[in-house]
Amino acid sequence: MTASIQPVILCGGGGTRLWPRSRRSKPKPFLPLLGERTLFQQALDRVADRAVFAPPIVVAGEGHIPVVREQGGSDLSIIAEPMGRNTAPAIALAAHRAAEGSVLLVCPSDHHIADEAAFGKAAQAAAALAQDGYLVSFGIEAVTPHTGYGYLRRGGALPGGFALDAFVEKPDRETAEQFLADGRYSWNGGIFAFGRERLLDELAAHRPEMARLTETAVAQGETDGQVFRPSEEAFAQIDGDSIDYAVMENTTKAAMVPVSMGWSDIGNWDALREARAGASSGPHELRDCSNAMVDSDGPRVSIVGLDDVIVVVDGDDILVTNARGAQGVGKLDGVSRG
Amino acid sequence: MTASIQPVILCGGGGTRLWPRSRRSKPKPFLPLLGERTLFQQALDRVADRAVFAPPIVVAGEGHIPVVREQGGSDLSIIAEPMGRNTAPAIALAAHRAAEGSVLLVCPSDHHIADEAAFGKAAQAAAALAQDGYLVSFGIEAVTPHTGYGYLRRGGALPGGFALDAFVEKPDRETAEQFLADGRYSWNGGIFAFGRERLLDELAAHRPEMARLTETAVAQGETDGQVFRPSEEAFAQIDGDSIDYAVMENTTKAAMVPVSMGWSDIGNWDALREARAGASSGPHELRDCSNAMVDSDGPRVSIVGLDDVIVVVDGDDILVTNARGAQGVGKLDGVSRG
Repeated sequence: MTASIQPVILCGGGGTRLWPRSRRSKPKPFLPLLGERTLFQQALDRVADRAVFAPPIVVAGEGHIPVVREQGGSDLSIIAEPMGRNTAPAIALAAHRAAEGSVLLVCPSDHHIADEAAFGKAAQAAAALAQDGYLVSFGIEAVTPHTGYGYLRRGGALPGGFALDAFVEKPDRETAEQFLADGRYSWNGGIFAFGRERLLDELAAHRPEMARLTETAVAQGETDGQVFRPSEEAFAQIDGDSIDYAVMENTTKAAMVPVSMGWSDIGNWDALREARAGASSGPHELRDCSNAMVDSDGPRVSIVGLDDVIVVVDGDDILVTNARGAQGVGKLDGVSRG
Repeated sequence: MTASIQPVILCGGGGTRLWPRSRRSKPKPFLPLLGERTLFQQALDRVADRAVFAPPIVVAGEGHIPVVREQGGSDLSIIAEPMGRNTAPAIALAAHRAAEGSVLLVCPSDHHIADEAAFGKAAQAAAALAQDGYLVSFGIEAVTPHTGYGYLRRGGALPGGFALDAFVEKPDRETAEQFLADGRYSWNGGIFAFGRERLLDELAAHRPEMARLTETAVAQGETDGQVFRPSEEAFAQIDGDSIDYAVMENTTKAAMVPVSMGWSDIGNWDALREARAGASSGPHELRDCSNAMVDSDGPRVSIVGLDDVIVVVDGDDILVTNARGAQGVGKLDGVSRG
């Protein structure tokens, strides 16, 4: 394959379950949650090889444009969403702005991928299938019976991947265990490859109003240096939807590329503790504890006698949770205060 | 009984297990841990009736004299210990400073007593026995098989109390359960009544060197307004010991007065949580928790998903512990930093 791949980096999503570190003003993608680079920067790093990847198009909310500029390189194209309308309109904006004939590689900016080489190989395989007219999902190897992800069921073999038999909603525990035993199921991690025109055609077929409004929003948009601003008037009228619902579940040309790449969506503090192998940061003292993790921006945290606890200190907020509680952090009143 | 009772309030003990709220500079007795008054102030309040109690003698470390003056009334006599030498020398200093013929009522300053009327009644009964020549311990009703206290075994009946059959060291769990079932055992809460001369005679008999050195320390001491300072040179030579070991276990005239008065030594954060009935203080939000207590001096503490947790915020220190861990708080490195 000689044509370069057009990365589309999506910076939506609040990461409220990682409050208080993740806040409305500086959400999850823009935090150095694992290592010194932020998750957004790591997403850019994965597509930094310009022999393979074109300079990325980043889609982010208007409020986060300053941090995107600060953390991203000067070769980025940035699309400022006037408001959130879920992934399908965000990807459509990027498709309209991308070069004709390009293959889009759509990546969330708030996931962690330990094995970048495996990511790169899967990206090339997915792009090749996309060039053959497929709408391709990354099928992330399911390593636990997780009930927090959608699943992809593979069908017949294709070059470098498989036909995509079914999109499956988040399962209950029993079903997730069956999926894991079955072997044909992967996690849907929200990473996709599409031929640009194929995607726009499918959107026009399955979500004609969304297709029309995103096209209008781009046609009436304005460029301000690195940043493109679609028309707020047109974009606001869109009935938001995910790319999964809007396109992937409706197309007859869905494919998947299986990949094992040390992926985590770092969906909550328990997942982040696992990705960090339990390592604490900030001043702390643990005594007679197991599975205790501290993440403090200053104050010293002393923990005595607990098994399974996560303590996060961010400014004037202190969060104390555990594996069970981590899912519920986003529902705290404190989160809505920012 | 017409003679008034001379309260002796002991302000030793660091309360390190209540760190970080209790610190070397302002330890447990001087904190408002339950209600608006500090534990020391509550100890004074219990003996405030001047028809029954003489103005108290307070024994405290030199470093805590300012806070004793600040929190205590102007009618106190204060003895400044140049260093800690345990309870027997502290009580001996107070005995030398007390009026001839008086009955001393020795009280720790860092306990909580919910039923003050029961305390007052027991104090009168103990003082009456002390006037008859007994060395009297308060025998606090054992309500759990606690392994953290010494126990008193009662013998034959005396007016208003019992002969004291045996002092028992902190028992193991099985023994503590036997004590509770037996019914003759009470907790030793460190509250005593002694005839002044009787106590000094017993000390001279069982700890002659300690008796001599405390007498010298007082004879060579200096009065500075409200504060009496014994000779540091003499006091420093004392081989410290508790009143239990030095006198109570050796006398043939030990008695006990049983009392049920809602007593707690607030020995650690778990005990304080119980005394507070689990009520939190400071900004907090509890979600999907049970038996969670917050004590914060400012930052907002959000807890999600935990059963049995105590979170204390004091300046730049955050403590997270539980029922099991509370005993070990005093062993944290943080405690030695103050």
